[in-house]
Amino acid sequence: MIGFRVLQEAAGPARLGRLTLPHGEVSTPAFMPVATHGSVKGLTPPQVRETGTEMILGNAYHLWLRPGCGSIAALGGLHRFMGWDGPILTDSGGYQIFSLAPLARVTDDGVSFRSYLDGSTHFLTPEDMIQAQEQLGSDVAMMLDDCPAGGAAAAVVEAATERTARWAARAVATRRRADQAVFGIVQGGTDPALRAASARALVTLDFDGYAIGGLSVGEPRAETAVVAAATASLLPRDRPRYFMGAGTPADLVALAAAGIDLFDCVLPTRHARNGTLFTSEGTLVIRNARHTADPRPLDPNCACLTCGRFSRAYLRHLVLAREPLAVTLNTIHNVTYYQRLMRDIRAAIASGTLAAFAATIGGGARENEEEASCPA
Amino acid sequence: MIGFRVLQEAAGPARLGRLTLPHGEVSTPAFMPVATHGSVKGLTPPQVRETGTEMILGNAYHLWLRPGCGSIAALGGLHRFMGWDGPILTDSGGYQIFSLAPLARVTDDGVSFRSYLDGSTHFLTPEDMIQAQEQLGSDVAMMLDDCPAGGAAAAVVEAATERTARWAARAVATRRRADQAVFGIVQGGTDPALRAASARALVTLDFDGYAIGGLSVGEPRAETAVVAAATASLLPRDRPRYFMGAGTPADLVALAAAGIDLFDCVLPTRHARNGTLFTSEGTLVIRNARHTADPRPLDPNCACLTCGRFSRAYLRHLVLAREPLAVTLNTIHNVTYYQRLMRDIRAAIASGTLAAFAATIGGGARENEEEASCPA
Repeated sequence: MIGFRVLQEAAGPARLGRLTLPHGEVSTPAFMPVATHGSVKGLTPPQVRETGTEMILGNAYHLWLRPGCGSIAALGGLHRFMGWDGPILTDSGGYQIFSLAPLARVTDDGVSFRSYLDGSTHFLTPEDMIQAQEQLGSDVAMMLDDCPAGGAAAAVVEAATERTARWAARAVATRRRADQAVFGIVQGGTDPALRAASARALVTLDFDGYAIGGLSVGEPRAETAVVAAATASLLPRDRPRYFMGAGTPADLVALAAAGIDLFDCVLPTRHARNGTLFTSEGTLVIRNARHTADPRPLDPNCACLTCGRFSRAYLRHLVLAREPLAVTLNTIHNVTYYQRLMRDIRAAIASGTLAAFAATIGGGARENEEEASCPA
Repeated sequence: MIGFRVLQEAAGPARLGRLTLPHGEVSTPAFMPVATHGSVKGLTPPQVRETGTEMILGNAYHLWLRPGCGSIAALGGLHRFMGWDGPILTDSGGYQIFSLAPLARVTDDGVSFRSYLDGSTHFLTPEDMIQAQEQLGSDVAMMLDDCPAGGAAAAVVEAATERTARWAARAVATRRRADQAVFGIVQGGTDPALRAASARALVTLDFDGYAIGGLSVGEPRAETAVVAAATASLLPRDRPRYFMGAGTPADLVALAAAGIDLFDCVLPTRHARNGTLFTSEGTLVIRNARHTADPRPLDPNCACLTCGRFSRAYLRHLVLAREPLAVTLNTIHNVTYYQRLMRDIRAAIASGTLAAFAATIGGGARENEEEASCPA
């Protein structure tokens, strides 16, 4: 019911794979749209499916705060709750707790923090987060990691990395569900030795898959891919590798080339809500006046509902009129763009042309400065 | 291409009909969801179709201000612009101009007002509004009427009614498109003699259909149906009758019984955005705490996507988390409810049981006070 097969390897570390999970199979490298609160913002589950999405990501920390993982369990689990019958990975929310929760304080026991919803105080252990995700019934649960903020001092990163390894052992000891994969999270910042130590410690625990956390948090972009590639090379070949929170189209190509199998990022969905749209000719800010009378679709190469039916002029009108349909149509388009990108990446790996494909990505006119990393 | 056939008449004035328009046929009595700015808020055109909707309503006044009717014409007309290939009726926006536009001033020539978007001043004539709707290419254009606010003095209502009759003649003289129906608007407030005079004046102009305007603007609810029934009886049997801006489910049943064929109202869509949902057991405020753990669908008798896949608990969660999907799912449900109501009304007319059906509507528990009329 849970498994991962490498179908084909390229000359470099890039590979094609098939991830088998209780709720279905996923062709990798794969991109998971983000459904933080149990909904890909603005899309019904059939609309998510039509983008070509096979697997989505939920956030156990957010769902734990509201409506509560026990409540979701009583309603039949996360799949039934949100009406999505495909695979779901739940992030434990380490990054969100450490980066976003007010007054988060960590000890070896766990982390205490205040709810951003009502200021109430909470304490969560690595065991709690596994149990919460077992209540959710996601296909893949993530261990709770100690995820220092970007730019943290070396000693802080080192302590967090060591604590993450101790928490990893507790996560493995706690898990009970045979129908749920559990992934470990490699930390270590941008320090190769720390990354290697973290990877070694986690691999001995025999997780179902391994995530690379603590990157794409503000470090120089060139460094991200180098550290990711070095870390990926230390992980077992027969387990899926998940890079948390990346990224731009160019990031995804570079990281797939480094041997990453799974991605998530809010970029396509958040950009959609801001009216920044991905096209085969670069990004486009639909609010700009030059789209006022433009009868063309966003992207002539896109088969999504938005490009099939609507002009740039109409999409701009919806944004200016603050029509809620703008969110839906823009999100359908951006997620479809990302899923087409993943298909292209897989095809390029299959044909041994990923390097040539990479050279075609990241060019084109851009109407705005692209973010350097995936915002949380 | 444009026609109306009465298929069956009940013992009273209620009737079943078929309205034929350039973009399709409509079974009447029919309800048109409101797409003020060229979008039924939160729904894609396929989602609108799935609610059972055959015809929608746009607002020429709003589209004239933004993005401009000439711009829409250059983009291929309103159907193409908004991706809806079924019939569209465009309201001229008389009610919106007189009720909502700052500093509206009317003379026999037309109406001057300030844009609510940028404060710019505008002047619109009855001829302008026909030409604007010919640019939009809607299936049905509405004449510009002088629509006094609810509670206006008798002399104001009388002057507005007489001016509306003069504007009606100018609308008929201006129209050029053979592929667009034009409807007249009967005014007259709640004064039977004024209503009769208005109806007589408009009927001589041989409109393709007749609307009853200036009701559902704050007058006692019982009066609405009485005035509507009296007015409808003065209109030609072989032309469709459209009651503008109604209403609650009970209103629609009462007005269909009075011989009305077409309805529009923001109630199902606006209520959806506020989380007030129509069910066969009354309305329900999804935000209320009692729905927190409720695994049931909104309405077990509803076949919509929302009721097929999602619990009340999930819908409440989406509203509390401010997820944009809440608007979509709630709107799908409320519009589906209205379209099922219209099917039930048509079936009751067909079987001669409309009075018995009316007795079943409007009961049931209500979690909030229903509005007395359709808000604009």
